[in-house]
Amino acid sequence: MKLPPCLSILSGHLCIGGQDCVEIASRYGTPLYVTDGDRIIGNYSAYERALHSHYSRIRVLYAAKANGNLAILRLLKEAGAGADVFSSGELSLALRAGMAPRDLLFNGNSKSPADLTLAIRNGVKISVDSLDELELIESLAAEEGNEVEIAFRVNPAIEVPTHPKIATGLRTSKFGIPHEQIKGAYEVALSREHVRPIGIHCHIGSQILDVDPFEKEAEVMVRIAGSLVDLGVPLDFIDLGGGLGIPYRHATDPAPTPEDYANRVMPVFLRGMKEVGIQPALWVEPGRYLVGDSTVLLTRVNSVKEAHRRFVNVDAGFNLLIRPMMYDAYHEVVLANRALDPSQIMCTIAGPICESGDILAYDRPLPIVRAGDLIGVLDTGAYGFAMSSQYNARPRCAEVLVRGGSITVMRRAETIQDIIVPMEARKW
Amino acid sequence: MKLPPCLSILSGHLCIGGQDCVEIASRYGTPLYVTDGDRIIGNYSAYERALHSHYSRIRVLYAAKANGNLAILRLLKEAGAGADVFSSGELSLALRAGMAPRDLLFNGNSKSPADLTLAIRNGVKISVDSLDELELIESLAAEEGNEVEIAFRVNPAIEVPTHPKIATGLRTSKFGIPHEQIKGAYEVALSREHVRPIGIHCHIGSQILDVDPFEKEAEVMVRIAGSLVDLGVPLDFIDLGGGLGIPYRHATDPAPTPEDYANRVMPVFLRGMKEVGIQPALWVEPGRYLVGDSTVLLTRVNSVKEAHRRFVNVDAGFNLLIRPMMYDAYHEVVLANRALDPSQIMCTIAGPICESGDILAYDRPLPIVRAGDLIGVLDTGAYGFAMSSQYNARPRCAEVLVRGGSITVMRRAETIQDIIVPMEARKW
Repeated sequence: MKLPPCLSILSGHLCIGGQDCVEIASRYGTPLYVTDGDRIIGNYSAYERALHSHYSRIRVLYAAKANGNLAILRLLKEAGAGADVFSSGELSLALRAGMAPRDLLFNGNSKSPADLTLAIRNGVKISVDSLDELELIESLAAEEGNEVEIAFRVNPAIEVPTHPKIATGLRTSKFGIPHEQIKGAYEVALSREHVRPIGIHCHIGSQILDVDPFEKEAEVMVRIAGSLVDLGVPLDFIDLGGGLGIPYRHATDPAPTPEDYANRVMPVFLRGMKEVGIQPALWVEPGRYLVGDSTVLLTRVNSVKEAHRRFVNVDAGFNLLIRPMMYDAYHEVVLANRALDPSQIMCTIAGPICESGDILAYDRPLPIVRAGDLIGVLDTGAYGFAMSSQYNARPRCAEVLVRGGSITVMRRAETIQDIIVPMEARKW
Repeated sequence: MKLPPCLSILSGHLCIGGQDCVEIASRYGTPLYVTDGDRIIGNYSAYERALHSHYSRIRVLYAAKANGNLAILRLLKEAGAGADVFSSGELSLALRAGMAPRDLLFNGNSKSPADLTLAIRNGVKISVDSLDELELIESLAAEEGNEVEIAFRVNPAIEVPTHPKIATGLRTSKFGIPHEQIKGAYEVALSREHVRPIGIHCHIGSQILDVDPFEKEAEVMVRIAGSLVDLGVPLDFIDLGGGLGIPYRHATDPAPTPEDYANRVMPVFLRGMKEVGIQPALWVEPGRYLVGDSTVLLTRVNSVKEAHRRFVNVDAGFNLLIRPMMYDAYHEVVLANRALDPSQIMCTIAGPICESGDILAYDRPLPIVRAGDLIGVLDTGAYGFAMSSQYNARPRCAEVLVRGGSITVMRRAETIQDIIVPMEARKW
């Protein structure tokens, strides 16, 4: 199997960022998420550079939803990233990581009055999802005596080749304002006192491995930008969102690079802006692409069973990695403590959760696996820990960060006390 | 809409256990899980009584995975329940709720050495999922100088009409020992020094609305029990698991009662035991049936949008209730603050999470809904909060318990600090 750049094999052990996963697992316990910080920085730099080589006004907003660990937000902030935040929580994390309010965009289809007030007070731009929300923002901003810079999120009605649950630019999606209503929305915004429409926003989905839809999206956005300028909207930024996927199936998935993305999107954008006669900043919101391949989930084998399949029962399930169950997602798996042993038998990696669907990987060729062995589940940096739960009363595992030869705990493991304490504020 | 027994409408407000949901929501905030404790006790009593009227040696083990709140475990303990626990965490919660170790069964396909040791030390019976696990138990029990009472979990290879992710008795499921291997497994167990096989266990799945499969299961288990007795296994309990569903679609779903269940299962069990010549305890493991219809999730409307559909954007999404997204599950919804207003328009209830699939309910007839309104999502007591996450950096909501006219917080709401603190053990 072709390993992602941050992984290697030394003396038969899987290594990440040069560190031995077997040692890390025995030191920090399992299950365990291990992230290579340098890989994240490398991914960020590649993304930024690819766009910047076409145009100077580029801003990369990291989609914090992919992995909201503070250590990762801090790394990305140092590298120059802002953030696409989707809740008051993500906004708070981004600020705590040191990001400036001007480098954030508050997105989402359902923001509460408290969410919006937090953004307004902090001077964070808001991507507005409906006229109903616009009016709420207007009244909250008036109360605060503030003016808010906004964009509308456009629903471009673009079909994309990804899982329907994460295809966010479909006509039927809950996100954004239908593109045929968008001019009317800006007209309303221009007439309001406390909102200043200065941008336009779109995001067509996640885990897209074909750059065609991004080109189509750019075409739609350029067209809309032109009509908005005609309307008198002082467009200062166009946000094309994120969505570039990663090759989870190492052998067969296409692996479009940020260059591939930029080479298709930027000519459309630049030609369009020239025609419209403006030079707005171009914002993008990569999430998965920056963090996805930086992380391995280490999980210990509890037992092996021959039944309908050969089940390798491990200590991590969909409580920690829900993507296989939720989206039929594929992750490569490696026998981390004997990574050079030849594959001999098909194994199904089963988690400990009480549902038949709790399978991390079906029918993978592996060496003979035994209780006590260590499995590495690859490419788990995006939508891994971020979507974890305490289902089956399982405390969530630790996350560690490998960087420049050192290993630090970036989220401590929970214990059963973390589950009990919020229930014991009073005795029953 | 026919409301479940714990709900009513007074002055146009949805009430639970006689308490006004609008007042509860304004007092405790939204989103909010509200549970009627009396309903749980009523469900438990009905279940226990239905079986007990056929046979005296009945033990009801509550499937703690459905809802692991300590307050609920304590209620059920007082009512006489034991628990089916699926992890060290659930075992700890059950003990903390005051349940006796003898009233617990430790289930699961993937138990770690630490899980097994905890069970062994506490004298909790174990349902063993594989021979590999049996040998591990034997060696751990030897280390502890203890003897452990066990059952094997049988895979009965029964097709059941439910969602495939929760059909646990299929031939292809990860759970249990194929029934044709089960005799051999007991032979091994009988030959080991520190395990004492005294039971047999099965669980065919969850949310089953037809009692036929339970009858088939009982037939399989009776047949196996006979062969085990022939083998010399001193069978002291037969555990048929749980799985009785609830009618989430109030108007159209079948609603089998515990009596329906008992009337089909008990004759098979009793006839079989008479033929075999033993009188083992009959254990059952209801989860959803006991708690499912006891709870409403209250969620506030943030905005309303006319797009492809009429989207009612609320403050709870699949971070708090994943069933609609994960299993295409259906939950009735009620406009809790104007519950008697006539339905006028189809609404789609959308959560605040960053995925297109984050829809709690599609196309439901509701009155004209406005920002600030309160939606009640019904029948959310099972696999609701239990499967919640902090996805999108959203602190999880509170759970409150209504009982005998009083309201208590049974799990406090989280804040962003609950998310930050585990990441700030050290500075970066």
